[in-house]
Amino acid sequence: MENNQKNNQGTDNIHEAMPGIQKLIEMALMEDIGSGDITTDNLVSPDKTGKGIIVAKEPLVIAGIDIAHQVFAHLDGDISFRPSASDGDFLNPGDTAVEIEGRLCSLLKGERTALNFLQHLSGVATHVKSFVDLLENKTVRLVDTRKTTPGWRVLEKYAVRIGGAFNHRSGLFDGVLIKDNHIKACGGITKAVTKIKKNVSHLVKIEVEVTDEDEVKEALKAKADVIMLDNMDLKEIREAVKLISGKAVVEVSGMVTKKELNALAETGVDIISAGALTHSAKAVDLSMRIL
Amino acid sequence: MENNQKNNQGTDNIHEAMPGIQKLIEMALMEDIGSGDITTDNLVSPDKTGKGIIVAKEPLVIAGIDIAHQVFAHLDGDISFRPSASDGDFLNPGDTAVEIEGRLCSLLKGERTALNFLQHLSGVATHVKSFVDLLENKTVRLVDTRKTTPGWRVLEKYAVRIGGAFNHRSGLFDGVLIKDNHIKACGGITKAVTKIKKNVSHLVKIEVEVTDEDEVKEALKAKADVIMLDNMDLKEIREAVKLISGKAVVEVSGMVTKKELNALAETGVDIISAGALTHSAKAVDLSMRIL
Amino acid sequence: MENNQKNNQGTDNIHEAMPGIQKLIEMALMEDIGSGDITTDNLVSPDKTGKGIIVAKEPLVIAGIDIAHQVFAHLDGDISFRPSASDGDFLNPGDTAVEIEGRLCSLLKGERTALNFLQHLSGVATHVKSFVDLLENKTVRLVDTRKTTPGWRVLEKYAVRIGGAFNHRSGLFDGVLIKDNHIKACGGITKAVTKIKKNVSHLVKIEVEVTDEDEVKEALKAKADVIMLDNMDLKEIREAVKLISGKAVVEVSGMVTKKELNALAETGVDIISAGALTHSAKAVDLSMRIL
Amino acid sequence: MENNQKNNQGTDNIHEAMPGIQKLIEMALMEDIGSGDITTDNLVSPDKTGKGIIVAKEPLVIAGIDIAHQVFAHLDGDISFRPSASDGDFLNPGDTAVEIEGRLCSLLKGERTALNFLQHLSGVATHVKSFVDLLENKTVRLVDTRKTTPGWRVLEKYAVRIGGAFNHRSGLFDGVLIKDNHIKACGGITKAVTKIKKNVSHLVKIEVEVTDEDEVKEALKAKADVIMLDNMDLKEIREAVKLISGKAVVEVSGMVTKKELNALAETGVDIISAGALTHSAKAVDLSMRIL
Amino acid sequence: MENNQKNNQGTDNIHEAMPGIQKLIEMALMEDIGSGDITTDNLVSPDKTGKGIIVAKEPLVIAGIDIAHQVFAHLDGDISFRPSASDGDFLNPGDTAVEIEGRLCSLLKGERTALNFLQHLSGVATHVKSFVDLLENKTVRLVDTRKTTPGWRVLEKYAVRIGGAFNHRSGLFDGVLIKDNHIKACGGITKAVTKIKKNVSHLVKIEVEVTDEDEVKEALKAKADVIMLDNMDLKEIREAVKLISGKAVVEVSGMVTKKELNALAETGVDIISAGALTHSAKAVDLSMRIL
Amino acid sequence: MENNQKNNQGTDNIHEAMPGIQKLIEMALMEDIGSGDITTDNLVSPDKTGKGIIVAKEPLVIAGIDIAHQVFAHLDGDISFRPSASDGDFLNPGDTAVEIEGRLCSLLKGERTALNFLQHLSGVATHVKSFVDLLENKTVRLVDTRKTTPGWRVLEKYAVRIGGAFNHRSGLFDGVLIKDNHIKACGGITKAVTKIKKNVSHLVKIEVEVTDEDEVKEALKAKADVIMLDNMDLKEIREAVKLISGKAVVEVSGMVTKKELNALAETGVDIISAGALTHSAKAVDLSMRIL
Repeated sequence: MENNQKNNQGTDNIHEAMPGIQKLIEMALMEDIGSGDITTDNLVSPDKTGKGIIVAKEPLVIAGIDIAHQVFAHLDGDISFRPSASDGDFLNPGDTAVEIEGRLCSLLKGERTALNFLQHLSGVATHVKSFVDLLENKTVRLVDTRKTTPGWRVLEKYAVRIGGAFNHRSGLFDGVLIKDNHIKACGGITKAVTKIKKNVSHLVKIEVEVTDEDEVKEALKAKADVIMLDNMDLKEIREAVKLISGKAVVEVSGMVTKKELNALAETGVDIISAGALTHSAKAVDLSMRIL
Repeated sequence: MENNQKNNQGTDNIHEAMPGIQKLIEMALMEDIGSGDITTDNLVSPDKTGKGIIVAKEPLVIAGIDIAHQVFAHLDGDISFRPSASDGDFLNPGDTAVEIEGRLCSLLKGERTALNFLQHLSGVATHVKSFVDLLENKTVRLVDTRKTTPGWRVLEKYAVRIGGAFNHRSGLFDGVLIKDNHIKACGGITKAVTKIKKNVSHLVKIEVEVTDEDEVKEALKAKADVIMLDNMDLKEIREAVKLISGKAVVEVSGMVTKKELNALAETGVDIISAGALTHSAKAVDLSMRIL
Repeated sequence: MENNQKNNQGTDNIHEAMPGIQKLIEMALMEDIGSGDITTDNLVSPDKTGKGIIVAKEPLVIAGIDIAHQVFAHLDGDISFRPSASDGDFLNPGDTAVEIEGRLCSLLKGERTALNFLQHLSGVATHVKSFVDLLENKTVRLVDTRKTTPGWRVLEKYAVRIGGAFNHRSGLFDGVLIKDNHIKACGGITKAVTKIKKNVSHLVKIEVEVTDEDEVKEALKAKADVIMLDNMDLKEIREAVKLISGKAVVEVSGMVTKKELNALAETGVDIISAGALTHSAKAVDLSMRIL
Repeated sequence: MENNQKNNQGTDNIHEAMPGIQKLIEMALMEDIGSGDITTDNLVSPDKTGKGIIVAKEPLVIAGIDIAHQVFAHLDGDISFRPSASDGDFLNPGDTAVEIEGRLCSLLKGERTALNFLQHLSGVATHVKSFVDLLENKTVRLVDTRKTTPGWRVLEKYAVRIGGAFNHRSGLFDGVLIKDNHIKACGGITKAVTKIKKNVSHLVKIEVEVTDEDEVKEALKAKADVIMLDNMDLKEIREAVKLISGKAVVEVSGMVTKKELNALAETGVDIISAGALTHSAKAVDLSMRIL
Repeated sequence: MENNQKNNQGTDNIHEAMPGIQKLIEMALMEDIGSGDITTDNLVSPDKTGKGIIVAKEPLVIAGIDIAHQVFAHLDGDISFRPSASDGDFLNPGDTAVEIEGRLCSLLKGERTALNFLQHLSGVATHVKSFVDLLENKTVRLVDTRKTTPGWRVLEKYAVRIGGAFNHRSGLFDGVLIKDNHIKACGGITKAVTKIKKNVSHLVKIEVEVTDEDEVKEALKAKADVIMLDNMDLKEIREAVKLISGKAVVEVSGMVTKKELNALAETGVDIISAGALTHSAKAVDLSMRIL
Repeated sequence: MENNQKNNQGTDNIHEAMPGIQKLIEMALMEDIGSGDITTDNLVSPDKTGKGIIVAKEPLVIAGIDIAHQVFAHLDGDISFRPSASDGDFLNPGDTAVEIEGRLCSLLKGERTALNFLQHLSGVATHVKSFVDLLENKTVRLVDTRKTTPGWRVLEKYAVRIGGAFNHRSGLFDGVLIKDNHIKACGGITKAVTKIKKNVSHLVKIEVEVTDEDEVKEALKAKADVIMLDNMDLKEIREAVKLISGKAVVEVSGMVTKKELNALAETGVDIISAGALTHSAKAVDLSMRIL
């Protein structure tokens, strides 16, 4: 399987037109502004303009600049939003990510929501980057899982790519992953793989979750495209990799920690998937300063 | 100011009828299931039923059981969802939170989304609880901020209460917090407070952010209800508390860490607000086991 | 309590970005235009342009100009909308509020919906103004209630401010008002106030509804911030005001008529709340004339 | 034209499934409850049940009972809602319209929104009834206009029927009304009517607005189905009616007041349309009493 | 009844502002692009621009150009969309309908959705045109029915007009059509027509479905505006037309085929309605070529 | 590649909970019922109940029974809907698909919308079945394309499976298909395939569109999983199949007609994709009869 923890290729992007993202931005503004910003509306004249900058307060990989832009654009069509960094850039404390200019009241109303998006997405990207940097064997792919914050799947998976790792399937709709309960319901790995190959689109690969050597053999024989080794120790993994020997892509999953990362990578697996990439990232600190 | 880190009083609840929460659940199911669960739809007959349990995999404070219920109810009206724990309960690894029974395919389709909600909300509650338990002076209120995950404001603020801490304002609409930029735009604290008192509803309190002793004095004179001490060291905080001496509620804010928590509490402030309660919580581990 | 029936300060505004208002505008256009304006679509070429003015047909306080603007903008991005009055201005019959120019078919399709918004909001502002003008004691605040037209809360509360009065809380979410049923459910005023002070955000004030002198005393002792006198006659109100003597804000509520307004104000209360401000306003007459 | 101010026939109804009404109910609950009812959530246990009645506080024609039902059903699926009156019934002060039973917290949260719907719709029905009762000539039809509260078209037109009057077209989509600007754009009444007859569905009638005798003659010759007399005095109306003599339905419109109603009816017109039916109705007083 | 299969009058249009159409466009983009175009996002830089043309691949009547425009505008505000044909134009294979220029990735992402709209609507217009061209008696109106693709009512009825035929009512809301079940429920045609005339708006015509001569007579006597002959053979239709002799508009409905069209038209009916106009149209072939 | 035109396996289903389908049903009811069914509401008492059957009027493969159910359920929660056929069943004229019982007015209001869904989906299934039945070589897979009716992607792809054929990718998000414009933008097939393999999820297969022998060779060398032969004649296809000889899945696409189907299948390709399956299906005839 071809590979390489990737850098920003400039072809990656967040889709402005995606209804889901617009809806999340609307919900975020609604839940913060609701019936009105009673402080700003009462104290700051709509005629007053201002300029602000968004700056890093700790070392971080920035992600979500375009979302922050959309937050302000949604509030006030006249705001000028001028990024001085791109998603994926590493920022030191004090570095400016964006300069914003326009009605002061709009800057103040959008500030928290824009920052909340940036802090969360940059938090994921920074966290992912710390895993990717640690990984010595660059031919192993580090991938995310479906353990994402509800409502944020597309955005968090984007931040994972920005952090230099890869995506597993987006959801239940774009990849087959046959787990123990599916296997039980069908009466065995062979039956499950055979049945699904008969029905599913020819563009979809079949991944099977296995727990011991016998199941590895059965999955191989059933021509699974990807075999996920579940709950095996390093020795078992190494043996499974040998057994499979390139006839299927090999993935290990589970509660992957930074400590185990390189040991896992050295077993010869192709893919390491880690829920921690998304569900254990803290927000990083960014703030908006009115000049 | 009356107080006490609170326990679950049974009067707290998540509002089923709140459109925002239903929308988030719909978005979450849509982003995960999309055009269909191609594994389950092809392998598990809709006639097959099953029973599952959601169990804790690490020590945690559970939060969001009703949301998990709604996730499954949204997918399949016939599922029986039987909680054996209540939001706020402490669970040990292996403890069962819920038993679920119904169509196996619905259990499998809803599993990840329900768990993602539970893991995130229980993560916040557990994280908050670890701060609350640490706090020796129980008359100081630990409160959250507006640094929440966009789309999740109401839910995360609920999890903060479940974890035993308190809520600051919900958004820009339900409390006045006059910050430096508002003060600058009005020409001083006195002018800002006077102006807003003239306009804002009589049910709303006025909080002013101050950075030094002079500003504390001005805020007091302007009859601010709450004074937020920004960026002061412990000694300055103690002096401000003495100066204010009960004539206003005193809040300290900032990057509050567990280490500083008790030192801050001993200064005599009424309120400690911490963005970390919501923006730095990791998901806790829960899983669904089909029996 | 500081006060003064206010004039337009120029800092008040309707938030373009508020999803609720956009939704109401969309619903209004949809219910009027639906599957198409069969008269205009069949008779007026989309190439034909026109100019129109919106004029007052009776004396009125105008409110909602920006909403009217958004109605036309929603229909046709190319329409030029030039207000010659601002919300809060008093217009005499024949005075022009706005000049509009663009595709004639768009003017005709948007006319009724834009006027319906303007007529309703200006109706509320004009009605409110007639109360405010009547009030001799300018230190008493006249405030609205939650008796608003469903779907219109934010807009009608805006029109109340434009008319020169004030807003009570926006909804159940941004202010505590403990009524008889809450008191009964808790076992008394003291218990209710104590309980809620323990839980609710420190930025929220506590208002208690009382019906006799004993309850006034209990509310005072429980340190309610605001006391609402319910169903008391002028004499009882005067006595309650004396009893409270500045230790809490005093509100009277009920079916306030213009006749009683000044008598009520002279009792020394701080706040008079009147559902009539919103629920009994008639639309005022405005029309669009194509030039 | 057949006619008769109608009574409730039992076949009239509000469509539960109509998305527009559900959306308005959701918006209304959202704007009132928003991030939560902080009084009730903190003081009333979700386990506590209660019973309440909605009673008339002034003489009124009730309308909107089913909407009130849906408000509570939306909040809480377990509430029992038992009407003791039907839309169109006349209630005296003290008469009970509905009995409601269920969780006390749900009763308190839904109370204001349900009442706001009932008060507004009953206000329209009662106002309309007062016109209908005044009308001596029962063969003249009193009809509403498109001057309705934005977002409320279907509901207010329903309340008009409940009050005993009739509906004009629902919107721009279900009836042709050729006004002066359409006529100007086409180059005359004849051209306008001819053009639209060629294009519009054969199920739609053609109404033309005219301002003098010549236009009446032209409209008749062009075979308009309905002729609307605009801005004519009683004498002119009588002459127009004579001229038309049954060859078209005759409508008069304008600022119809109760005083002029019977004089207008005696001119022999078929239809009197009055914006006042909807845009000048005040809310009537109803309240909920917890037993 | 006046008539004439119509040509494009330039006054017909699709309403950009109609919420239903925007929603359908959003749904269409969402279902095609979903979580992202993984081919284009990975291979085409967002900086790369391109130019494309949409060309006919078979003879067709084009319809929906404005919708195609909105699809691209929705995806990317910077795209230039330059039509070289108007809805209703006849295109030969190879003829260009539109030239589009902008980000190549946006062209590729919007291509299929834009074409799917164009192909379907032009398919309906072309199919309708083939009926209209066949019809020798140009005083008979060919009209559509409510047998349209769910979600597409307004668009398909627009395409019918573009194809040169006419619309029957838009839905159940804008025209009365009394069918056998309504008649049975009321106890006869006379009762049904009388009852509905008493209640329904004076701008609405009454159509009654009849199946034999007796019912024709009863409908005539009841003063139905339009009589629909259901399931009659040519001889019966001719007799019914004679009986009615201009006192009502006569419509025939049913499974109208091209073969029977002229025979039906010669019976003297005014209206022929055919579900086939919308439910049996195939998409026509158009493609986008990147230059 | 494993295969076999499939029969109904009973594991296929339409997802009730999928927001997209609910939205389409709501739009469909809204566009048909809008402001109300003025015929039924005026003539049929809500108390009257009735029973109806949906029957086939021509030979057809039924699809969409559950959607029809949801249409009625959406309108009226009390309707009993009893299918006597399952999706995929072949029905002869006169065969009953469903029996429905409940309020007569609800049956009449939902009739057309339910039938429109059933007629369209059964039309697709029947059309697809006619292709599948024709195909002699049952190891070749017949698959659909993205040429579907906007808003209907998931439903039409479901009907394709019910008709016995297979699905290609659902949209741009769940499969890589590298076309000529992608290849041009990347500088060749090898570069494109290499680049995408580096970035895309390991569960996704890579399909490349080629137009001649050289491109076939390049795609093979680049290890494309699937090769789509575009615009080749039967001889070229046969040679390409020989060249590929099992090292990739082979698909042919284009304007596939029934006539060419078996000739194409005999070339040895694995997959034949045909837009005609969805974009050229006519509705089949079903009707509802009230008993």
